[in-house]
Parts: sequence; structure tokens; C-alpha cells
Amino acid sequence: MQITLAVHGMTCGHCEKAVKGAVEELNGIQGVEVHLDTNKVDVTYDDVYVSKEQIESAIEEQGYDVVS
Amino acid sequence: MQITLAVHGMTCGHCEKAVKGAVEELNGIQGVEVHLDTNKVDVTYDDVYVSKEQIESAIEEQGYDVVS
Repeated sequence: MQITLAVHGMTCGHCEKAVKGAVEELNGIQGVEVHLDTNKVDVTYDDVYVSKEQIESAIEEQGYDVVS
Repeated sequence: MQITLAVHGMTCGHCEKAVKGAVEELNGIQGVEVHLDTNKVDVTYDDVYVSKEQIESAIEEQGYDVVS
């Protein structure tokens, strides 16, 4: 599965690391790419182990808004 | 001694922590306040133990520009 999430509030390299790190900690994650310039986060994952909702929650727990 | 430094590039709470943490690690620091809204950093210190230049270097090592 591959999704692209729109995430608001990421401003710098620290934000990028916080989001990437939180998603990578979940089971079933195969890849995470954060694009600060477009406020997008690409996530590749195995949906047997993790859901889109869990990925969104992990990002929101770091203090960012997932808008789609 | 009390100085206010103008620091460019601080955008979020992580940046605030990075700057505050780096300055606080120096000897002779009595207080650090980071103001993200105005890009200012207030530092209170004992100049027997630390210099303005050392404080500026600590901030620059975190990847921020000290402009005054």
C-alpha cells in the first residue's frame, strides 16, 4: 500500500525527523518520505500490520495536523 | 551579563529546544529564553565562565544563524 498524507505544521528538519521517526516505529512500515516543501508525507506499508488511521495517529501525536 | 541575540532559522518547538539545550550545556549560563515569534534569544550568563562568542557558536553549531 502507498499513501500520501497532507500534513500541516512541519517547518524544519526537526519536524521531518519527528514525523519520520514516529511513523517508522509502527509495525509494517516499509518506507517514509517527508516533503517539507509540499507538506506531504509518502508512506509505504503493509496493511496487514498497520492501518492508515494508525499512521495518521502517530503523526498527530507528534503535534501535527493530518488534513487528508 | 544579559544579551539578546537575533537568531535566524528557528521555526518550531524543536528548534527552540535545540537552541536552548545547546546554550544551557555551556558553563556559566544562568538563563535562556527563546522567542520564536521575534527570532530573539535572551541569555543571562556569568562572563567569567563563558563569552558571547561561545554562546553564538553553540547556537550556530545547531544550524542557525546569529545575526547580531
